[in-house]
Amino acid sequence: MLNTIKSTFTKFGFLPLETPAMENLSVLTGKYGDEGDQLLFKILNSGDFLPKLKQELNSYNSKSITPEIAEKGLRYDLTVPFARYIVMNRNDINLPFRRYQIQPVWRADRPQKGRYREFLQCDADIVGTKSLLCEAEIIMMLNEIFTNLNLEGFEIAINSRKFLTGLSEYLGQPNKENQLCVAIDKLDKIGQEKVYEELENQGFDKDALNKLTPILAINGNNEEKLTALYEIFGETESAKAGLDELAETLSLVKGMSGDLATVNFDPSLARGLSYYTGVIFEVRMLDGSMGSISGGGRYDDLTGVFGMPDIPGTGFSLGIDRIYDVLESRSLFPDDLLQNTKVLIINFGEENQEFALKAISQLRDSNISSEFYPDNAKMKKQMGYADKNNIPFVVIAGSKEIEDNKVTVKNMLSGEQNTYSINELLTIISQEVN
Amino acid sequence: MLNTIKSTFTKFGFLPLETPAMENLSVLTGKYGDEGDQLLFKILNSGDFLPKLKQELNSYNSKSITPEIAEKGLRYDLTVPFARYIVMNRNDINLPFRRYQIQPVWRADRPQKGRYREFLQCDADIVGTKSLLCEAEIIMMLNEIFTNLNLEGFEIAINSRKFLTGLSEYLGQPNKENQLCVAIDKLDKIGQEKVYEELENQGFDKDALNKLTPILAINGNNEEKLTALYEIFGETESAKAGLDELAETLSLVKGMSGDLATVNFDPSLARGLSYYTGVIFEVRMLDGSMGSISGGGRYDDLTGVFGMPDIPGTGFSLGIDRIYDVLESRSLFPDDLLQNTKVLIINFGEENQEFALKAISQLRDSNISSEFYPDNAKMKKQMGYADKNNIPFVVIAGSKEIEDNKVTVKNMLSGEQNTYSINELLTIISQEVN
Repeated sequence: MLNTIKSTFTKFGFLPLETPAMENLSVLTGKYGDEGDQLLFKILNSGDFLPKLKQELNSYNSKSITPEIAEKGLRYDLTVPFARYIVMNRNDINLPFRRYQIQPVWRADRPQKGRYREFLQCDADIVGTKSLLCEAEIIMMLNEIFTNLNLEGFEIAINSRKFLTGLSEYLGQPNKENQLCVAIDKLDKIGQEKVYEELENQGFDKDALNKLTPILAINGNNEEKLTALYEIFGETESAKAGLDELAETLSLVKGMSGDLATVNFDPSLARGLSYYTGVIFEVRMLDGSMGSISGGGRYDDLTGVFGMPDIPGTGFSLGIDRIYDVLESRSLFPDDLLQNTKVLIINFGEENQEFALKAISQLRDSNISSEFYPDNAKMKKQMGYADKNNIPFVVIAGSKEIEDNKVTVKNMLSGEQNTYSINELLTIISQEVN
Repeated sequence: MLNTIKSTFTKFGFLPLETPAMENLSVLTGKYGDEGDQLLFKILNSGDFLPKLKQELNSYNSKSITPEIAEKGLRYDLTVPFARYIVMNRNDINLPFRRYQIQPVWRADRPQKGRYREFLQCDADIVGTKSLLCEAEIIMMLNEIFTNLNLEGFEIAINSRKFLTGLSEYLGQPNKENQLCVAIDKLDKIGQEKVYEELENQGFDKDALNKLTPILAINGNNEEKLTALYEIFGETESAKAGLDELAETLSLVKGMSGDLATVNFDPSLARGLSYYTGVIFEVRMLDGSMGSISGGGRYDDLTGVFGMPDIPGTGFSLGIDRIYDVLESRSLFPDDLLQNTKVLIINFGEENQEFALKAISQLRDSNISSEFYPDNAKMKKQMGYADKNNIPFVVIAGSKEIEDNKVTVKNMLSGEQNTYSINELLTIISQEVN
């Protein structure tokens, strides 16, 4: 799975980047909200740290002592370390800069099913340009990744934050774009009624909600939806700017792909994070079997928090664990993925050692992963080893067979046994496993 | 480099294993000596940790408070987490068990050239059997890894701890095997004179050193060395056992490979670590340009410290950083390793957008990593981008060329420019980059 993802990234000109697991806490703290700060794993300073405290030991509590005894923490996501990397290497980086990063992140959450303290994240970004070509390329890349993973029935939903800003104005609440986004982001999960309740609590009145309903109900293909919305929002500047960038992105995708049936303009797609400023996207399964398996969008200011403003970019994350779950639930992993060794040669001690040593080398020279059982153990034990390790072929060759220049090969899946010459063995197993 | 290593591991039936970065400090502490304990990165407990202290806050110093405010630490090597893994999963593991592990480890060392706080380790082990086939297979695997990396001029030195035990007896100091090993391990670094000084300080007398000299001087091929030592040590039980296991290992290697010229029995190879009990090995460059680039050996008791005795095994580590340095100093990395994108299409805005979008898709469909510069920037800037990113081919196609169904391709290495049809472009670049 990761190999498929990486090779697609490479094809689109993205290079891998890795950053150290530990970052200074000054880099991490304050970037993920209060809850995030609490979920940061903090590394105790080395050496004799207590004498360096600024005050009397007794005057501290856990919260106040932490910054004085822990200077470093484990990375919490890949975005902040990436921004830090860009700032630190700003003189060497050649913009526009494309990178992908696949590394673990750590969160001090209570471990539970599907939520681990260490898990893999996968991000890809193009920074240093405002060109909508980036949006189009990312859509193409997402489409190719999920197509290559044989994940049928996905869609790439897109929308624009500028359109949502205009929508908020149109609903009479020009400054409540974020509240609007947070609420309609939950449409799939909690349904329209609850979303409307939340919007009312946020100050959107009945009138506004009545105006929202037909917009959420708009359907048709992407062009039809755009046309319908241009009619409503033609006069709302920011909404029109949003529709324009969506139309342009879709046209660029079309220029690359003819037509991409998996791309779906969804005016209700919101993505809660407030730092998105342009086109946003999300990949999900059409059957609703799983939440978002990838999401991202354009941001205007990746590194401003580190004192380097005006670095725009477009990026996305792949939900590696969820994609894994979908592939597994559909049995889309190749059968032989966990089956490493293809051939086990049974060990009969001195009787077949000379033969087996030669045969194992020949098998490996033919690039066939193989093992010679290391001990002259009981046949049952050796067969059990092959069975438990999903080794598909077992070579049984005792002294009589070797004398006749023959070996018996047992196919562990079918139970079938056949007798071959050594050369036939190599040919047949090469064919079977390659 | 890692791909070459991994594919060789796979061929020999080794599966990848990964363990979490964090381990309980109870697992890590006391396994690496006092210095190691100090170099462990410790993770501050989450939440309100001070009220949980057993005593008055003021009564603690840095050392005594650490175990009460930090329960977890970052892994320091791969051996201890592997042993912990074996013990925790003892009911599910099918012995003999082969695994390799390539993951970062962390040490709170002062960072300096060639020594990082986070660095990659690479271990491979077969546990659960005492068969010397493991030693032979590891030698074959090491040979194949370094051969596949085109690393000419390496040798796989082997020796036996049992032989060294016998040697210590023969020198009249039967209980000073470890001191003997630690001292002669330094022969390459500090020379015979200093090693002898150290041995004298450890209680080996002049007589012993006079007996040692001809043994360290023994030369010839492996069989000749074995024959000479059998004559001296035929009556010393443990030395003879060691020579026997070396002879058997070499014979097994021979059974697999005909003859392996890179394997060299070196009676002075010691490897300092005291947990080795059988055959030990080390890979080094014959020109002495680099210390050991790989080392390992047989151990009798991987998991005893976790209460599960009698798990023997054989394993080794690859010195990833050193191997990288040797390869780099010999310019053995392919030129195009850091050159990801093969083709950049220059962006002339509307003028060539339609053409470029189609061309970039065709290039990628032909599996050629390529980029379309995202902005209609000045030609010089776009060429500079290709240059800095080592992109070998730049496609220049303005409206006139597109009309004529032609493109100009600049080879950035030779400076040569040629004009092709689109189809020729695909063919030629496919040939050039594949």
